[in-house]
Amino acid sequence: MSQNIPEKQWAQVIEKTGGPVEYKEIPVQKPGPDEVLVNIKFSGVCHTDLHAVNGDWPLPTKLPLVGGHEGAGIVVAKGELVQDIEIGDHAGVKWINGSCLACDFCQQSDEPLCAKALLSGYTVDGSFQQYAIAKGAHVARIPKEIPLDAISPVLCAGITVYKGLKESGARPGQTVAIVGAGGGLGSLAQQYAKAMGLRTIAIDSGEEKKKMCLEELGSHAFIDFATSKNVVKDVQAATEDGLGPHAVILVAVNEKPFQQAAEYVRPRGTVICIGLPAGAYLRAPVFESVIKMITIKGSYVGNRKDTSEALEFYRRGLIKVPYKTVGLSELQKVYDLMHEGKIAGRYVLDTSK
Amino acid sequence: MSQNIPEKQWAQVIEKTGGPVEYKEIPVQKPGPDEVLVNIKFSGVCHTDLHAVNGDWPLPTKLPLVGGHEGAGIVVAKGELVQDIEIGDHAGVKWINGSCLACDFCQQSDEPLCAKALLSGYTVDGSFQQYAIAKGAHVARIPKEIPLDAISPVLCAGITVYKGLKESGARPGQTVAIVGAGGGLGSLAQQYAKAMGLRTIAIDSGEEKKKMCLEELGSHAFIDFATSKNVVKDVQAATEDGLGPHAVILVAVNEKPFQQAAEYVRPRGTVICIGLPAGAYLRAPVFESVIKMITIKGSYVGNRKDTSEALEFYRRGLIKVPYKTVGLSELQKVYDLMHEGKIAGRYVLDTSK
Amino acid sequence: MSQNIPEKQWAQVIEKTGGPVEYKEIPVQKPGPDEVLVNIKFSGVCHTDLHAVNGDWPLPTKLPLVGGHEGAGIVVAKGELVQDIEIGDHAGVKWINGSCLACDFCQQSDEPLCAKALLSGYTVDGSFQQYAIAKGAHVARIPKEIPLDAISPVLCAGITVYKGLKESGARPGQTVAIVGAGGGLGSLAQQYAKAMGLRTIAIDSGEEKKKMCLEELGSHAFIDFATSKNVVKDVQAATEDGLGPHAVILVAVNEKPFQQAAEYVRPRGTVICIGLPAGAYLRAPVFESVIKMITIKGSYVGNRKDTSEALEFYRRGLIKVPYKTVGLSELQKVYDLMHEGKIAGRYVLDTSK
Amino acid sequence: MSQNIPEKQWAQVIEKTGGPVEYKEIPVQKPGPDEVLVNIKFSGVCHTDLHAVNGDWPLPTKLPLVGGHEGAGIVVAKGELVQDIEIGDHAGVKWINGSCLACDFCQQSDEPLCAKALLSGYTVDGSFQQYAIAKGAHVARIPKEIPLDAISPVLCAGITVYKGLKESGARPGQTVAIVGAGGGLGSLAQQYAKAMGLRTIAIDSGEEKKKMCLEELGSHAFIDFATSKNVVKDVQAATEDGLGPHAVILVAVNEKPFQQAAEYVRPRGTVICIGLPAGAYLRAPVFESVIKMITIKGSYVGNRKDTSEALEFYRRGLIKVPYKTVGLSELQKVYDLMHEGKIAGRYVLDTSK
Repeated sequence: MSQNIPEKQWAQVIEKTGGPVEYKEIPVQKPGPDEVLVNIKFSGVCHTDLHAVNGDWPLPTKLPLVGGHEGAGIVVAKGELVQDIEIGDHAGVKWINGSCLACDFCQQSDEPLCAKALLSGYTVDGSFQQYAIAKGAHVARIPKEIPLDAISPVLCAGITVYKGLKESGARPGQTVAIVGAGGGLGSLAQQYAKAMGLRTIAIDSGEEKKKMCLEELGSHAFIDFATSKNVVKDVQAATEDGLGPHAVILVAVNEKPFQQAAEYVRPRGTVICIGLPAGAYLRAPVFESVIKMITIKGSYVGNRKDTSEALEFYRRGLIKVPYKTVGLSELQKVYDLMHEGKIAGRYVLDTSK
Repeated sequence: MSQNIPEKQWAQVIEKTGGPVEYKEIPVQKPGPDEVLVNIKFSGVCHTDLHAVNGDWPLPTKLPLVGGHEGAGIVVAKGELVQDIEIGDHAGVKWINGSCLACDFCQQSDEPLCAKALLSGYTVDGSFQQYAIAKGAHVARIPKEIPLDAISPVLCAGITVYKGLKESGARPGQTVAIVGAGGGLGSLAQQYAKAMGLRTIAIDSGEEKKKMCLEELGSHAFIDFATSKNVVKDVQAATEDGLGPHAVILVAVNEKPFQQAAEYVRPRGTVICIGLPAGAYLRAPVFESVIKMITIKGSYVGNRKDTSEALEFYRRGLIKVPYKTVGLSELQKVYDLMHEGKIAGRYVLDTSK
Repeated sequence: MSQNIPEKQWAQVIEKTGGPVEYKEIPVQKPGPDEVLVNIKFSGVCHTDLHAVNGDWPLPTKLPLVGGHEGAGIVVAKGELVQDIEIGDHAGVKWINGSCLACDFCQQSDEPLCAKALLSGYTVDGSFQQYAIAKGAHVARIPKEIPLDAISPVLCAGITVYKGLKESGARPGQTVAIVGAGGGLGSLAQQYAKAMGLRTIAIDSGEEKKKMCLEELGSHAFIDFATSKNVVKDVQAATEDGLGPHAVILVAVNEKPFQQAAEYVRPRGTVICIGLPAGAYLRAPVFESVIKMITIKGSYVGNRKDTSEALEFYRRGLIKVPYKTVGLSELQKVYDLMHEGKIAGRYVLDTSK
Repeated sequence: MSQNIPEKQWAQVIEKTGGPVEYKEIPVQKPGPDEVLVNIKFSGVCHTDLHAVNGDWPLPTKLPLVGGHEGAGIVVAKGELVQDIEIGDHAGVKWINGSCLACDFCQQSDEPLCAKALLSGYTVDGSFQQYAIAKGAHVARIPKEIPLDAISPVLCAGITVYKGLKESGARPGQTVAIVGAGGGLGSLAQQYAKAMGLRTIAIDSGEEKKKMCLEELGSHAFIDFATSKNVVKDVQAATEDGLGPHAVILVAVNEKPFQQAAEYVRPRGTVICIGLPAGAYLRAPVFESVIKMITIKGSYVGNRKDTSEALEFYRRGLIKVPYKTVGLSELQKVYDLMHEGKIAGRYVLDTSK
């Protein structure tokens, strides 16, 4: 156990559903035998955190709750059973804080499906505090050459889109359409796809996003769903043989694209659903889905292996994430901006302020 | 070219959409360089044949048309390029009469997705005649120890369910739910599943079907959707660990089960759609589909490899199909029974009568 | 913690490499936070145990050592972190006693490749004692309807051949050749293969083994390598199309079959090596291996998922293992018989005697 | 049939095994119903062509023979059954000139394993003539923006290494070692690997090759097998975690690396054999291969799908192949240089000279 761990720390605490978050001092916890204590330096803020405050998802949160699941920091203490990670190592506290490692799903490397999975900033306290607890086998191993502020948003969004791309089964040289390409997840998806040898068609709207997708994020085509007269035809026309993309990655936040993707995806192609528009339904005509043999698949967050692979792409300089840094004490302001829909890009909290 | 091929033959011909079929003599065709002429001995009758008569599918048929796509017979002539099959060999004329063998889909063994695929009894003349033409590379190779009458229904229904089971990705020892288990496709699906080392939960309704599924077709559980108070819970409870089947095979002909399957399938499980209820939609909540990482997949008919594998299971005595034989001349009566919903089991036509 | 755990217990202990084993009383250990204490009722004896005594493998053993890695018993105590298994549950202590559950291999469900894996009866004390320690996440979950004596040999040999069959990639309906079919591993391999929907060609020698393989173990062909004039041709001729089996499972204990299998396996086929003949080499001509695109693959023991699947096949009554039961006190006699090559079938030790 | 096809043409003909090749006029053939006639513009020269002259492979060649299997040109005539390719289209005549498209292997897209495959410049006349015949379904479709001289060497070497990389199963982000990295196949392998999102370790010898591999071909590490004190350790050390590359691609022409690769490949890794050193054997210790669960796999040439994918990577500008162009009439000089081992890079023949 490192000597410098304080008894008290600053944290953002939700006392009751609906908020607000309170910035105050709370005790620092001690790790159990299979846990580590991570001195969080930076933590990204995600829309899920706002759901945790508002309590508008079916699953109830812990209360009082410290939110946050994109925490990057330094291991300062660990339990007796923790292997493969040492005090001083850099580590990430992510959505899956821990899992049983013994059930049928954990046995097949599907830890996110574990019925006993602990969710950071939701069913257990998360990264909006200076010292967070997580299971030693589950914290992300962050190579030391990666800056902790820059990596924090990757710990959720980056891993999630990388997982979706893997689940799509698209092989290097094949084409993937990214729906919602101009947003945070979409920008990352294009970069990961490129690093994986895939070609991408960006689907979104507006000149600014078009420019960004084509010039910065490596897409070879951009379809503006707002101005296109026929999105299905335009997407298919953007593939070499006109038969449509091999896969579609849905990171949009409304329902329509979920129903349209089945139309333009290539026969034998795969539609991956990642985004979670409230109350939305997948919907596809049975006849065409059967005749074209298409696959529609939900993809949740990555497992530990996906995490380490996603970070490695970052380490090699292939992924960029724009973000703004503010103090942990300013979290409520970030939520207010989110609420008003005024957020552009990702906010990262500095826990020292 | 065998000497005994007549110039004329008996056939059932649809002159105009809506029918009726006319039993009359028409000329025997000559095979092109890559084709064979098959002396059809028996042909099964499928619901698709009725759709071809009625013209109620989006895709138009050839006219006049000889229907039928479950023809079993003997090769009596072949073009100069035909390899691997000889005059005197037994062969099956099935739904996919031919394909280009050169396009992107044919190159990856997905001949059923070929845009130029010829469909027996739909876009080209089929097996409701004594001598049918098909591409030499596409006719099913039928081992001589298999009776031609018994195998004819397998050429469509058997291959289709076998393909669906393969597409599900379910491995030996895992559990598959068959929805519509008591019907023709469902009965075959249970037998193929058992031969593939899978366990099956039969879903259908009625005591007679229950008895058949449990005692004859090898299912270990039967859920009666008409009397069950909670189909989702009952299906899940019929699996060892209560987490639901690894795959669901939908061969039902109405829409509801298509939307229910996503609820009881195991996390990471696969729902395979085979049946084609008119105008039906796949529909699943985005949130649950993502969180459970489920897959919904359309499965059309088998390719040539699936065909040969499906026939091999039959040859080994692992598959039984009940059927009644009537003369080719009686086809209209079979359609009338179908129309009235009075068909139980499969009808096979004897082309010599 | 259950009350009835004694302070002392009977065990077979190796004090120095080369043996002998000594039957004596030693203290009962207490489980750590992630461990369970299993009251071993029965333990199979495997050739590997003899290697542990003799110290003739490159890897050194713990000393003093309690051998054994096929232990079946009842959980009597568990650490605070152990989930998914309760006191009173039946559990198996197998070769992989524990692993880190955090390294790259554990993350991808390849626990047997973990560099920190603990090996029962080799690097940690095993099942030749009345109370054995193992990691809670790693003990096999044994359903209560399975007899503990009968399952013990399955915990090593059964899981190993099941894993090899999975690794072969052979699909239901395809053909697998089992080399060394008449031995302990080979007998199990044939039964698992059959349960998985595979066809098997048994390769071994002698009339007795032939009869057993064809009449009891479900193989459709038997090739006697001692009397065959051309093993390669005979094996290929035993497949429907004469092109050879889709996979070969090598459980033999000499080198020749390892070099012969590459000759008779089907193009695109897979040769799985399981047996470990001392000092043997895989050897195959580069030219033919490339032109036929064959795969040669080593398969070690199963992971936890393989374990649970292999036990489930047993539970369903699809696997039989003949064995003889003697007292734990008689272990040295069993070793003596092994040494003299006089063992037929498997020995299981009753720890109460 | 295009009007401008001459009756006679220039070709390089081998009259008897051992050579020499004779440059002379021979008749132009007419395509059969499923064939095309390609006006070859350029043809690469491969070591296999020299084997065809020398007759030193087990398989006998046609005689007299026109060699060559890297021919790029324009379709000038086609049979009545040929679809998907038109007169005027650019096409490649490659090693697999045709196959039955109906056998078990063709059915599963493994045309190179077809027992009836026709081999260009070996069992049928190839591309060292101005007008070559090939099966319409098998000629490579070459997009018109690709120069015909530059693409010709890709038609054999490029497709072969791309196939090997696919067969390795290595995923984007993983590491592949290329043994023989500085040669023709090795240079292409590094470029394809990079385009597929893989990282590469180049293994070869000499400063010049080192420079080329690291600065031009994108490898992140170079191991000089001639100066390394411990190749196994050095290769493993060149991977992030020191556990070795996920796959090894063997394009070397001597035996030693075939036996060394199994030692440094990562546990669960795959060794792909492509090169065909005369009389060489794969050899790996059984014990280590099993314990590490490694795979050794032969990879032959690509199928039609691999061909089209490999050309698409080229079209996108991701692959460069250095070559020298000489007249078809000068083929014997190229063979002489090959014989003397004086060839650096690839020679391409211009059939107009």
